[in-house]
Amino acid sequence: MLKVPDHQVAGHHGAHGQPGPLIDDSGRFYKPLQDDDRGAIEAAFYTSFSSNTRVPDHIRRFFPVFHGTQLLEASDGSGQRPHLVLEDVVSGRSHPSVMDVKIGSRTWYPEASEDYIQRCFEKDRKTSSLCLGFRISGLQLYGSEESGLWKPERKLVQNLSADEVRVVLKKFVSSNSPIDPNLNPDCSFASSVYGGSSGILAQLLELKSWFEDQTIYHLNSCSVLMVYEKKKVLKGGSSDAEVKLIDFAHVTEGNGIIDHNFVGGLCSLIKFISEILTSPDECTTKVCLQNSDNNNEEILTSSNECTTKVCL
Amino acid sequence: MLKVPDHQVAGHHGAHGQPGPLIDDSGRFYKPLQDDDRGAIEAAFYTSFSSNTRVPDHIRRFFPVFHGTQLLEASDGSGQRPHLVLEDVVSGRSHPSVMDVKIGSRTWYPEASEDYIQRCFEKDRKTSSLCLGFRISGLQLYGSEESGLWKPERKLVQNLSADEVRVVLKKFVSSNSPIDPNLNPDCSFASSVYGGSSGILAQLLELKSWFEDQTIYHLNSCSVLMVYEKKKVLKGGSSDAEVKLIDFAHVTEGNGIIDHNFVGGLCSLIKFISEILTSPDECTTKVCLQNSDNNNEEILTSSNECTTKVCL
Repeated sequence: MLKVPDHQVAGHHGAHGQPGPLIDDSGRFYKPLQDDDRGAIEAAFYTSFSSNTRVPDHIRRFFPVFHGTQLLEASDGSGQRPHLVLEDVVSGRSHPSVMDVKIGSRTWYPEASEDYIQRCFEKDRKTSSLCLGFRISGLQLYGSEESGLWKPERKLVQNLSADEVRVVLKKFVSSNSPIDPNLNPDCSFASSVYGGSSGILAQLLELKSWFEDQTIYHLNSCSVLMVYEKKKVLKGGSSDAEVKLIDFAHVTEGNGIIDHNFVGGLCSLIKFISEILTSPDECTTKVCLQNSDNNNEEILTSSNECTTKVCL
Repeated sequence: MLKVPDHQVAGHHGAHGQPGPLIDDSGRFYKPLQDDDRGAIEAAFYTSFSSNTRVPDHIRRFFPVFHGTQLLEASDGSGQRPHLVLEDVVSGRSHPSVMDVKIGSRTWYPEASEDYIQRCFEKDRKTSSLCLGFRISGLQLYGSEESGLWKPERKLVQNLSADEVRVVLKKFVSSNSPIDPNLNPDCSFASSVYGGSSGILAQLLELKSWFEDQTIYHLNSCSVLMVYEKKKVLKGGSSDAEVKLIDFAHVTEGNGIIDHNFVGGLCSLIKFISEILTSPDECTTKVCLQNSDNNNEEILTSSNECTTKVCL
């Protein structure tokens, strides 16, 4: 039985008359192929990647398993439509905390249309991408049995300043309520989620090594998804922290050049996360992000200015 | 006695009624302060950097030593003008091979003027910068006693494709003539210039480690200068290969964020150089770059297209 996924934090949700993704009980995620080039490019990427012998096995685990494409009734009832059949990366997790981070200070690429380049250029400047080398493009944090899942407005998390991103990355691994802006995130789970030999930082560093060397693909506008199970950590279990790369609708061939835009952005994200592990207490900025279910006005406490000229 | 430097390959040359840099016999390089913000920013950077205790000593050697500013008669006879007094990074080298590589796929920065951003945006797209994450912005190769120094047109080297950049990076460390497009560069000196524990690759990797961590400065539009003495290597001596960072007229404060644009571009350059060390023979593209003293038409043999969409 196919159903709409509960834990999608970014991407196309199936609103506004657009078909959205579906999942089943066997751990598969069905993503409708987008009509324009994007659907074809993403299908081509998965097909190429899944059979590419130059991709080492230890890297393959960072990508959703690809099971081909399949004609399915679209989620919006608009009829049969081809879907990518992928591994559901949050399958088997009942209350996953999920963060979608779009990597790169630039989401456009040389041979995109001029119109697309201009739109991305403007959006990259308006959001955190240009300054930070990445932007948070979606977020879901498990609070507690009572508070449930906290899912701030996507538009808001895209525009965070460096200090605000630091707070959100801390909230992601804290035991206290993510919603209360007056609570300093305690970073209780930083070492079990970000740290350790199988934690998120180690996984990102493994990816970084590969990206410094691979010249096969440029993953323009692709996201790093960070997932873990807070409920399990609260009970003293392992965090099962996992990094996955998703969204390949703008992949281009590398043609012998590394994806330097991705490498730079990934290094920036790595630095933010490393700092939380080495100095979890350095933090004062308040971030007030209302739950997206809530219609109250969102409040941000610091501006998005990220560079200043050196003064004499 | 001040004189015009022989071995400057990029930057402001003192043509078109603009004052250029001067050198003396004691190893100092006098760079006229540019009139607009750029002069003030560069002086501020050198002042800040030279007294910044957060910069480790092993990194300091990659930057020209700063000896303050000094009023001097400008090289174009336009009167007294303030100059930065810097270490002359090619001082003591009689026939240096020099390559100036501007790092970053983006040479603009968020709070530059809209006009500057648009000019850089266009130039980065037209030159190698966007595709490669860097562009060669000047080049001088020592050929032999007979052929002397080869200095191709700067405009031409900025627009090279990935394959052409590979050839130029090979020519830089080859014993055969850089001028003849039919000669495959032999990469004779690759291991002594690029390789080894004190070679250019090792130096670039040391810089990379620092840039992955430092959040003090963003070195927008800055160059890596690679220098060595081919004549000495030909005689069996050491290459004295050296990496220096130069041109800080667009530096901004890092504000807690790494210079992800620089890191990405540097990683791309490192990959190109690593490949020459591991597979020096993989090369077929011809590159015909006329000496800039020569008025013949320049010929390029391959296009600058660097990415292709993945095909189904």
